[in-house]
Amino acid sequence: MQTITDPAAMRAWARARRAEGRRIGFVPTMGYLHRGHTSLMDLARPRCDALVVSIYVNPLQFGPGEDLDRYPRDPEGDARKCAEHGADVLFMPPDLYAPGHATTVHVAGLTEGLCGAHRPGHFDGVTTVVARLFGLVKPHLAVFGEKDYQQLATVRRMVEDLAMDVEVVGAPLVRDADGLALSSRNAYLSPAERARALSLSRALRAMREAAEAGEREAAALVAAGRARLDVDRLDYLEVRDARDLRPVEVIEAPARALVAAWIGRTRLIDNMPLGPTAP
Amino acid sequence: MQTITDPAAMRAWARARRAEGRRIGFVPTMGYLHRGHTSLMDLARPRCDALVVSIYVNPLQFGPGEDLDRYPRDPEGDARKCAEHGADVLFMPPDLYAPGHATTVHVAGLTEGLCGAHRPGHFDGVTTVVARLFGLVKPHLAVFGEKDYQQLATVRRMVEDLAMDVEVVGAPLVRDADGLALSSRNAYLSPAERARALSLSRALRAMREAAEAGEREAAALVAAGRARLDVDRLDYLEVRDARDLRPVEVIEAPARALVAAWIGRTRLIDNMPLGPTAP
Repeated sequence: MQTITDPAAMRAWARARRAEGRRIGFVPTMGYLHRGHTSLMDLARPRCDALVVSIYVNPLQFGPGEDLDRYPRDPEGDARKCAEHGADVLFMPPDLYAPGHATTVHVAGLTEGLCGAHRPGHFDGVTTVVARLFGLVKPHLAVFGEKDYQQLATVRRMVEDLAMDVEVVGAPLVRDADGLALSSRNAYLSPAERARALSLSRALRAMREAAEAGEREAAALVAAGRARLDVDRLDYLEVRDARDLRPVEVIEAPARALVAAWIGRTRLIDNMPLGPTAP
Repeated sequence: MQTITDPAAMRAWARARRAEGRRIGFVPTMGYLHRGHTSLMDLARPRCDALVVSIYVNPLQFGPGEDLDRYPRDPEGDARKCAEHGADVLFMPPDLYAPGHATTVHVAGLTEGLCGAHRPGHFDGVTTVVARLFGLVKPHLAVFGEKDYQQLATVRRMVEDLAMDVEVVGAPLVRDADGLALSSRNAYLSPAERARALSLSRALRAMREAAEAGEREAAALVAAGRARLDVDRLDYLEVRDARDLRPVEVIEAPARALVAAWIGRTRLIDNMPLGPTAP
């Protein structure tokens, strides 16, 4: 595995692989890698000839007062995991953007509710960094986790709208044995906080079980979930259409339950499929 | 020359040429082609293996009350000119955007003054359509006229920021024998209006001559130009840095004089190089 830190060198590498006719797979991350991230690599690896993993804590997607400065880092451990999971290139730029960078990619609609309502500018930061990374890495295939479900839908929309030649693959969320969705931010949790953080997945499971038992009213499902939550602040707990993320009142098509909540100073998100054809 | 109207077919054509190792050249236009447009094709033609010209009157770059509905059209004449100037593909989609299109590409800074101040949203429409066209046409090289000088600078910025693999080539403005910059919108002008429209290039020439005679103060240059203008409304007459379009007070590096003004119901723009190393 080679490590590339210079965006121009990354681009030259990608051009050379393209010229050779190689199929490039790509897993963009912010590092502090866990089994969720390595599952993305494992999904990409057999579908490409050359696998790039990027690690870049993107300032554009953090708001003022968010955890940009304390976002956890582990460059040595990350490099080991990337190598173990078959990455050909670890792209770790200290600076990613061009000098004088002035461009923003914005996706309307999809980004307005859920995390978009609580993190203004967050998704603009995501789509902008992904667009630039796609330009540098030139992937045929890019894998994003369903953990960031709204992000995945937003990236798909951008790729469709700007006719980017990238196959976007969504990967299932990975949980610890106790049900907690894996997240680099779990590192912030004290043992007592972690115990309470389990209430997010418990709430979503309660909603899924109620849906499986025949409940179709979103309001009733949300009430069932909310009763299980033990959090310091709830940003949202909602039922949305699984594809376009529109609010759902009565489930008639595949739907998704999504939650974001604070345990102490840590903001956690989770989501689960609901409804007629949910897996 | 083949005509393609379906964006998916355009994309398939471009993928096939890329797979063959062909170099794709691209000239995006809004049609009603004149010698300015054909000069872009003539510039692109020897630098590529396959030349695509697009004609699409992009609603996103027109504001409310602008001339979207009356923008001049001449599909047969346009097709003939494209064929005569070596286009391999005329891409003329009735609808360009994906169903449910929700993405906007915005370039800050460069787009804020000049035409950006008078046409809110215009440059977002330009960068968004160019990004989507680049995705569909996959050009190695794209030619834009210096007539739309701010547009050219904005597209260059976007291409740099999003690491798009497109060589952006700027082509010199083309004038009629009387000095009027060629524009599809000149078709709107009555003979009397056209006579007054000549005052735009006259004003810019006066500024260039004053600069050549040693005047370096932007305010004095603008005053010299303004004295020549015979227009119904002046949107702007300014001296800007030729590269980043920052306002200039004293010319010390290559600069550009830019004007936008109304003659009757017609808005015209023009620009000219000024300053130490102006050609």
